[in-house]
Amino acid sequence: MGMIGGGIDSFIGDVHRKAAAMDGMIDLVCGAFSSTAERSKASGKLLFLPKERCYANFEEMILSEKKLPEDQRMDFVAIVTPNHLHFAPAKMALENGFHVVCDKPMTLTIKEAVTLEQLVSSTRLLFALTHNYPGSPMVKQARAMIKNGDLGSIRKVQVQYLQGWLATPIEKIGQKQASWRVDPSKSGVGGALGDIGTHAENLVEYITGLQIKELAADLGKFGEDRVLDDDGNILIRLENGAKGTMSFSQVAVGEENNLAIRVYGEKGSLEWQQEHPNQLITRWLDKPKMIYTSNGTHLYPEAIAASRIPAGHPEGYLEAFANVYKNFAIHLKAKLDNQEIEIPDYPTVSDGLRGIKFIHASVESDKNNAAWVSLN
Amino acid sequence: MGMIGGGIDSFIGDVHRKAAAMDGMIDLVCGAFSSTAERSKASGKLLFLPKERCYANFEEMILSEKKLPEDQRMDFVAIVTPNHLHFAPAKMALENGFHVVCDKPMTLTIKEAVTLEQLVSSTRLLFALTHNYPGSPMVKQARAMIKNGDLGSIRKVQVQYLQGWLATPIEKIGQKQASWRVDPSKSGVGGALGDIGTHAENLVEYITGLQIKELAADLGKFGEDRVLDDDGNILIRLENGAKGTMSFSQVAVGEENNLAIRVYGEKGSLEWQQEHPNQLITRWLDKPKMIYTSNGTHLYPEAIAASRIPAGHPEGYLEAFANVYKNFAIHLKAKLDNQEIEIPDYPTVSDGLRGIKFIHASVESDKNNAAWVSLN
Amino acid sequence: MGMIGGGIDSFIGDVHRKAAAMDGMIDLVCGAFSSTAERSKASGKLLFLPKERCYANFEEMILSEKKLPEDQRMDFVAIVTPNHLHFAPAKMALENGFHVVCDKPMTLTIKEAVTLEQLVSSTRLLFALTHNYPGSPMVKQARAMIKNGDLGSIRKVQVQYLQGWLATPIEKIGQKQASWRVDPSKSGVGGALGDIGTHAENLVEYITGLQIKELAADLGKFGEDRVLDDDGNILIRLENGAKGTMSFSQVAVGEENNLAIRVYGEKGSLEWQQEHPNQLITRWLDKPKMIYTSNGTHLYPEAIAASRIPAGHPEGYLEAFANVYKNFAIHLKAKLDNQEIEIPDYPTVSDGLRGIKFIHASVESDKNNAAWVSLN
Amino acid sequence: MGMIGGGIDSFIGDVHRKAAAMDGMIDLVCGAFSSTAERSKASGKLLFLPKERCYANFEEMILSEKKLPEDQRMDFVAIVTPNHLHFAPAKMALENGFHVVCDKPMTLTIKEAVTLEQLVSSTRLLFALTHNYPGSPMVKQARAMIKNGDLGSIRKVQVQYLQGWLATPIEKIGQKQASWRVDPSKSGVGGALGDIGTHAENLVEYITGLQIKELAADLGKFGEDRVLDDDGNILIRLENGAKGTMSFSQVAVGEENNLAIRVYGEKGSLEWQQEHPNQLITRWLDKPKMIYTSNGTHLYPEAIAASRIPAGHPEGYLEAFANVYKNFAIHLKAKLDNQEIEIPDYPTVSDGLRGIKFIHASVESDKNNAAWVSLN
Repeated sequence: MGMIGGGIDSFIGDVHRKAAAMDGMIDLVCGAFSSTAERSKASGKLLFLPKERCYANFEEMILSEKKLPEDQRMDFVAIVTPNHLHFAPAKMALENGFHVVCDKPMTLTIKEAVTLEQLVSSTRLLFALTHNYPGSPMVKQARAMIKNGDLGSIRKVQVQYLQGWLATPIEKIGQKQASWRVDPSKSGVGGALGDIGTHAENLVEYITGLQIKELAADLGKFGEDRVLDDDGNILIRLENGAKGTMSFSQVAVGEENNLAIRVYGEKGSLEWQQEHPNQLITRWLDKPKMIYTSNGTHLYPEAIAASRIPAGHPEGYLEAFANVYKNFAIHLKAKLDNQEIEIPDYPTVSDGLRGIKFIHASVESDKNNAAWVSLN
Repeated sequence: MGMIGGGIDSFIGDVHRKAAAMDGMIDLVCGAFSSTAERSKASGKLLFLPKERCYANFEEMILSEKKLPEDQRMDFVAIVTPNHLHFAPAKMALENGFHVVCDKPMTLTIKEAVTLEQLVSSTRLLFALTHNYPGSPMVKQARAMIKNGDLGSIRKVQVQYLQGWLATPIEKIGQKQASWRVDPSKSGVGGALGDIGTHAENLVEYITGLQIKELAADLGKFGEDRVLDDDGNILIRLENGAKGTMSFSQVAVGEENNLAIRVYGEKGSLEWQQEHPNQLITRWLDKPKMIYTSNGTHLYPEAIAASRIPAGHPEGYLEAFANVYKNFAIHLKAKLDNQEIEIPDYPTVSDGLRGIKFIHASVESDKNNAAWVSLN
Repeated sequence: MGMIGGGIDSFIGDVHRKAAAMDGMIDLVCGAFSSTAERSKASGKLLFLPKERCYANFEEMILSEKKLPEDQRMDFVAIVTPNHLHFAPAKMALENGFHVVCDKPMTLTIKEAVTLEQLVSSTRLLFALTHNYPGSPMVKQARAMIKNGDLGSIRKVQVQYLQGWLATPIEKIGQKQASWRVDPSKSGVGGALGDIGTHAENLVEYITGLQIKELAADLGKFGEDRVLDDDGNILIRLENGAKGTMSFSQVAVGEENNLAIRVYGEKGSLEWQQEHPNQLITRWLDKPKMIYTSNGTHLYPEAIAASRIPAGHPEGYLEAFANVYKNFAIHLKAKLDNQEIEIPDYPTVSDGLRGIKFIHASVESDKNNAAWVSLN
Repeated sequence: MGMIGGGIDSFIGDVHRKAAAMDGMIDLVCGAFSSTAERSKASGKLLFLPKERCYANFEEMILSEKKLPEDQRMDFVAIVTPNHLHFAPAKMALENGFHVVCDKPMTLTIKEAVTLEQLVSSTRLLFALTHNYPGSPMVKQARAMIKNGDLGSIRKVQVQYLQGWLATPIEKIGQKQASWRVDPSKSGVGGALGDIGTHAENLVEYITGLQIKELAADLGKFGEDRVLDDDGNILIRLENGAKGTMSFSQVAVGEENNLAIRVYGEKGSLEWQQEHPNQLITRWLDKPKMIYTSNGTHLYPEAIAASRIPAGHPEGYLEAFANVYKNFAIHLKAKLDNQEIEIPDYPTVSDGLRGIKFIHASVESDKNNAAWVSLN
């Protein structure tokens, strides 16, 4: 793995590294961690990388690695930069024969997203998008239950993603994570929409197996001088006729990372809360409420495969994140070994395109006073 | 108190009687419990009422009671019938000098609701609407905290009221509670909207002290052959610029009575769940999450006054319901005694009118594909 | 019902009155509420009682009521005084033909408790002890599940009753509820032991249907200058070989009324928390955790009979307390009507004797450095 | 790091490897993974280790590695075998100059534990015992709060560790994890006592900063034909006069890994539940209940240092385990670099000795019908 972005004071770079390392299948071999060669090398040194494989920028890294013997060069790039710096390195990596792991939202524009989808299709290279929540065992159980018809036809969805860390304008006092997220040139047309709304959108489609057909979005800008949304409330309609609400916010004072989803079907319903990720609450027409737990009893194989330790031993954010890398690595290894396997489950370039469509549809709807906009 | 409706197999009639009796301030003295004289007398007998004060219908009750000496006749009527039978008895009671306690939604039409509001105004009689959730101590605490500015300006509201008891078409097998609720001639233009949506609407306005200015509603009819909504998702905007979502359902499989609200302000936020009514969760910019409890520490006087037993001893639905009756009774007693008091806090005819406007605005919005409709 | 104790500033008197009134089966007709005739009449007046039936003391009440015609006099006494004032009125009431409802702990000494048990036996009068927690629907469900063998043979029990209101010596500043509870002449040989430990003991025996065979108690006196226990930790062994712990405290800072029990059997286990009384958590060898709810699905008839309102509408402390009165009233009515019925479920004089034995065994064990003491 | 034990089908070996790898500070360089050279090499191969550093047994590993140049050989051994195989390799490693990380319980006998303590003292080598729960951020917060006097003097402790996986005699059907744990020759004199009771004991002493002075233990053997305890209830007294209960079980049907502790002081109390490890519940004399969260607001530095990701992103069992390795590695690195640093916080050989004393005191107490036994 070669990393693009993720220098010393990056939050998400370290998460990617820990997630990639967890199962002993992936080694970090090079990186273009920062915007200057010096800082990149400084970061690389802390990561015990040889100096010569700490590059000044992604172009240099891709071109240099390509020249290395096949058994020495990186197999894929991991792109962990702010949003505006996803597209170019992803495109260049694909064009030069490297597989890609990319953070979300995938690109700034729909056009860019379509370009990447086409490149992945034409190159037959692998592309993983790091929506980490689908990596959670109980999310996999939720998806499997719906796929297997346990809940019957889906009627209603409620999803929320509530954070409070942007409740005050901390970008004005130089908080780095905040600064680029509120800046349209780096974040894109969506603020909280892209940062966390896309997680909510992805979770709905992943768990239900249904696409959001159309939406009506009422976005908010509550932080002083914000030009991008920091809050949103959205009506959604799924392709099968189900209806629902999505609510997200980064100004919900005191909320930490309150992503939660409820799905109601004809026969049963389920509820998952990211802050208590190891349990899945289910409700039924004719049975008491039942709580499934990670690696616990009566789970589908997909859920069991996503756990590493016995039931009751909490697995968290990093473990879920690592499942994206693990399944990508299993797929990649099979590809490198020219083995045919059932493709493991991880978010792909298509999920990336869905996310970008979601952002743009929401912004368009909001501009039209929450008129319905199609996601197709 | 004279009761209209609430015969033997009524659910809500018994709730009203227990609530009214709880504090020893109100006696049931007469009733028109059912649609025939015989059944009314049968119900009355079980309630230890004298035969002659069990009336065949509300007209007879109002006229007969009016003829009794002032110190013997009922002071007020409690109307606990299905929706379509609220307006006529309420109107007649007011026109004949009786105070009124009426179940919600108050009427079928806005015109009827306005008529009642005007009658209350002109007669100066008391009118309580039995939205019971504002009677809960922690709801009163929530309102007091916002009123006192603890949360700062309100930015976001999420409210939900989820039930599952109509997930299958039980009205087709004669379930009495279901049958009238899905029948527009008895329920009005709203189904779940009137039955539980109005509770959600009332709770938002009661707790925040802000009116819902406009809404965009996407209603659902999921039960087979339903003509009224049994599910709804609504975007709301409050008068101060706050935004939010409302979601309600009577087809949310396995949900019992999951009314919950979250309110986010500039400085703090709060969360109340009806199924765990004795706690109020609060979150803050710069403090850990704090949980207030009924009759616990650091509460506003309004919250303390609404509890009957020490902290840790759960108070529930009946106690909250009883608080509506208690405050109404305190007001009524002062009025009968010609005493000036600070008017106790209970839902009134104005809240009833708000509810009817909410129902009609939601239906209108839904007919126009969730276009925004004003509630004023 | 004639009440002994329960004057104006009593906590538990008002609870008894509300509980007795809830189902419309019991009327308060007289009382000896306080230690002087004047104060007793003042309390009675607030309760709308005629002056002549507000007595100066219980002796006067029992003798005077006895002289009234049978259809006018009270049917039973409710004794709601501090512990040291239970025995004398209970004995006198029974000796004069009145049924008895008595608060717990029943008496100060085992001898007194045995005397009452013998009197109840010889007079064939009814005697209810107001352990209220067995009145909770989910406690009844727990008992029924074990009785029906759902959990298999019981192996382990954990029970706790934690309060914090005596964490500081509030008796020194005249807090009335505290003052008599820390005074051995009024409270008996047990402090928290009698006040809340007996509830824990009763709950264990009620739910499991098994007697505590022996115990080893380590009591604590943490409040300054306390002579009675305000905290305790006890090892228990049940008659069938099950083992467990009991822990109670009135100095557990910040705890409100945290009574909770867990019972583990060979096939399943259950957990009930008084502060969230409407749910019963169950765990199983081969099924996910299942949560039963008051008046919800898949309950035993005993649990359903104990609820008054639909699932999801919380019922609390008063409703559970009222179930003791209701079942007592049903039994009493059948007796007065000379009807044979299946005896309804409420705590009796035998439960009272168990509680007194528990208190004395615990004190004896504690004096002997937590040596085992038998409860038989 | 060289690993002793932890072959392919070991549970805890993989946990140790993931934990050691998480922060990029520790590399696995060799191992004696299994009881035969072949199986050891097979395990090593899956871990990408060179064949020549996969040893047949720990003696070979220690002696061979010792011969390697200092910059190539392992710095320390990690002992992850069943209990009876801890002492010999730990002793030999220390005697040959290798630092040690060892699983718990440390040894079978007190004598062995004392021997190791003395060896650590005389060699000045580092020794970490992998009690992982002290690695949890909220456990560190709990300890810091008590150390800083926030709770005042401690009065009461309740600790429990409940599992259900041995509820049926799965050792009879060859379940490997069960088989050695119920076998005294491998597990020692304690069953559940050593396996999970020691975690509870360690957690009490770690959080309170107080030693358990004496205990009275009532152990249970509920699984068919068990010769070691699979359940226990213990009264404890701490050195400062605080009292409490400990309860543990591996036959508590349906429990997964329910380790929980409550500590009550004069001014406040706290509660931590391992299955929801990212929150710490606190209660106070004069404030509402407050919930602290991992990496959230108002934490002590010790707690913040133990988190890797932002508040609201759950950290679990592996992260806590990794904190033991991380702090050990920090200490080791400083030692290797001859730097003086403040010694980081991780469980040591002294904690190991406490655990062995706890096991033996409990067994002795149980044999004497729960008589008090001192831990000193």
